[in-house]
Amino acid sequence: MTDSAFPGPTVPGPAFLGESESAALVDDELALAAAREAFLATATGSVFPVVIGRSPVPGTRFTLKSGCADGLVGVKIGSFWPGNTGLPRHSSTIVLLDPATGRLSAVVEAATANAYRTAAADALAVDLLAREDSRTLTVIGTGHQALHEVRAVSRVRPIDRVLVVGRRAEAARAFAAEVTAVTGVTAHPADARTGIAAADVLVTATTAREPLFDASWVAPGTHISAMGADGPGKQELPVALYDRASLFCDLPDQSLAIGEFQHTTAATPVALGAVLAGEADGRTAREQITVFDSSGFALQDLTLAAALLRRRAAVPGEPR
Amino acid sequence: MTDSAFPGPTVPGPAFLGESESAALVDDELALAAAREAFLATATGSVFPVVIGRSPVPGTRFTLKSGCADGLVGVKIGSFWPGNTGLPRHSSTIVLLDPATGRLSAVVEAATANAYRTAAADALAVDLLAREDSRTLTVIGTGHQALHEVRAVSRVRPIDRVLVVGRRAEAARAFAAEVTAVTGVTAHPADARTGIAAADVLVTATTAREPLFDASWVAPGTHISAMGADGPGKQELPVALYDRASLFCDLPDQSLAIGEFQHTTAATPVALGAVLAGEADGRTAREQITVFDSSGFALQDLTLAAALLRRRAAVPGEPR
Repeated sequence: MTDSAFPGPTVPGPAFLGESESAALVDDELALAAAREAFLATATGSVFPVVIGRSPVPGTRFTLKSGCADGLVGVKIGSFWPGNTGLPRHSSTIVLLDPATGRLSAVVEAATANAYRTAAADALAVDLLAREDSRTLTVIGTGHQALHEVRAVSRVRPIDRVLVVGRRAEAARAFAAEVTAVTGVTAHPADARTGIAAADVLVTATTAREPLFDASWVAPGTHISAMGADGPGKQELPVALYDRASLFCDLPDQSLAIGEFQHTTAATPVALGAVLAGEADGRTAREQITVFDSSGFALQDLTLAAALLRRRAAVPGEPR
Repeated sequence: MTDSAFPGPTVPGPAFLGESESAALVDDELALAAAREAFLATATGSVFPVVIGRSPVPGTRFTLKSGCADGLVGVKIGSFWPGNTGLPRHSSTIVLLDPATGRLSAVVEAATANAYRTAAADALAVDLLAREDSRTLTVIGTGHQALHEVRAVSRVRPIDRVLVVGRRAEAARAFAAEVTAVTGVTAHPADARTGIAAADVLVTATTAREPLFDASWVAPGTHISAMGADGPGKQELPVALYDRASLFCDLPDQSLAIGEFQHTTAATPVALGAVLAGEADGRTAREQITVFDSSGFALQDLTLAAALLRRRAAVPGEPR
C-alpha cells in the first residue's frame, strides 16, 4: 500500500499494517504506553458517537468508534462475527486520517493488538489505583482476553498468585495452567467467593449481563478493573458495591450510558485521565476499594495504531 | 496491500485501490450501474446512524456512513478539510468488510469516484422521473460537482442546451464554457428566473442554506434533482414548491432529518428505490413536477467500491 499511486508527487501513499505484522509488533509495553497517551488525551481530545451496525447475517455486529486528539484523527472498525470457525470472531481495523489534510494516512489491522490495547487500559488503572503491594490477582473469565489481562496486570504490580474464577471448572483449571505457563506465576482455580475475598486486584473479563458476585465479598483495599460492560444491558459488578468504593472510568459519559455504571443512577465516576494527569485523586487510603470501568474509546485505538506504525518505522533494515 | 501477510494461508489479504487508480477506473456508466444497485438495495439493506466528526483544526469535518446489503458491509469515511491548498478539500475512503467473516476485505480511496457517485444518483432520478423528451438542463452551481452532474444527466436524456445559474457572472460564464468543452452541448449563463422557467431538468448543486429560487418560477413538467442538502440547516428548494410537486428521495427518514425535506412538516417523500423496483409510481403525467432529494447513503459507497474492484479485476494483463 505504501507504493500506491496517491495523486500528487509530494504526497506519500497511505501506510498499511496487516494483521500478522501488527500482531508481531505489538507487546504489553507498547500497548501500555499507547494507553497512557490515550488517557492523557481524553482531556483535550474528542470522541464522536459510537455506531453499532451489523451485516445481513444474524448475530453479526460491527462498531465504529471515532475520535480526534492532537495529531490524530480516525476511526476503529471493530467487528464480531460469532459464526466464524477457524478464524477469530473479533476483527479490528483502525483507519487514520492525516490531520493536516483529512486524507487517508494509514490502515492498521489490529485484532491481536486490540486485545493488548484493552488489557493495557485495565493495567493502567491498576498501576494508578491498586495498592503498590498488590500480590494476589483474581480474574473472572477464562477467555482469550482474560489471559491478556493477567499478563498486562502482572507487569505493573508484583503479582505472585493468580486465582481464576470461571463458570466451568474444567475451563478454569485449563486457564490457570495456561497462566502459569505463559507468565510463570502460580495460578489456581477458585470459587468466586474465595477468589474475590483474597484479591488485591480483581479483573473481570466476561460478557456477563448480571453481577458476577456479591458486593459483601470484596475486601477493603481491593482494586477492581472491569472490562466487560461495553453496551446496553451488560453488567459485571454489583451496584451495592458502589456505596463503599471510589469509582473511576475511561469516559464518564460513555461509562454511564453503556458501561458498567449504566446500572447506577448515583455514580459520578472520575475520569482515569484526570488521575493520570494529576488533576484528580486516585487511591488515597489503603483500605479504600477502587473500581475502574473500561468501556473503550477511539483514542486508545488511534494511539495504538500510531505506536505500531512508529515501531515499524523504527525496525532497522526493513524497506518501507 | 494484496500481498500483506494476513494470517491463515487460505485467507487473502485485503485489496487496496488508491486514489489515482480508482479515479482512472471510474466513469459515468460504472457509477450509474452502482447507483442502480444501491437504490434497489435500499429495500432490503440497512444503513446505520451517520456520525459527523472533526479534527482539532477548526472547520474540518469527517462523516461516517455505514451500512449493509446482500453481500456488502462497510463504511465510507468522507472528509472535508476546507483549509487544504493544492489538494482537494474533500477526501473519501471506503472500507469494505468481508460479509462472511467481518474481516477487512478492501480499502478504496474514492475522492474522484465520489463525485461520480453523487452525480449518478441524481442522474438515476432524472432517468426515472424526468420527461423522456427533456432537452434543456439548468444547473444551479458552478463548482466541481456541478460539472459531474451535467455530464451524468446528459447521458440519460437528450440534453441539447445547458443553462448555468451562478451567483457570480464570471464563474457562470467560465463554467458554461467548460460544459461545452467537456460535453459538446451548448451551454449559456442565465439568470435564475429565466434558467428555472426554461428547464426540463433542473439540478441544484450548491451549499445553500436558503431557497435558491421562487417556487412560482418552476414550469409544469419540470424535474428537479437537488443534491446540496445533506446536513442540518442546508436548503436549496422553496417549501412552497412542494404543494404542487411529487416528492422523491433516497432515504425518506434521512431526507426528512438532514436532507432537503427537513424544512417541511407535510412531506412524505417516496423512496426512489421503490420507483426503480416498480413498487411505486414515478412520473404519471406530463405536467407533473417531480422533485428528488439526494442526501447520500452508505449503500451508494459500498456498491461503488465493489464495482471499482470488479472493474480492476476485469482489466486484462494486470497482475493482482
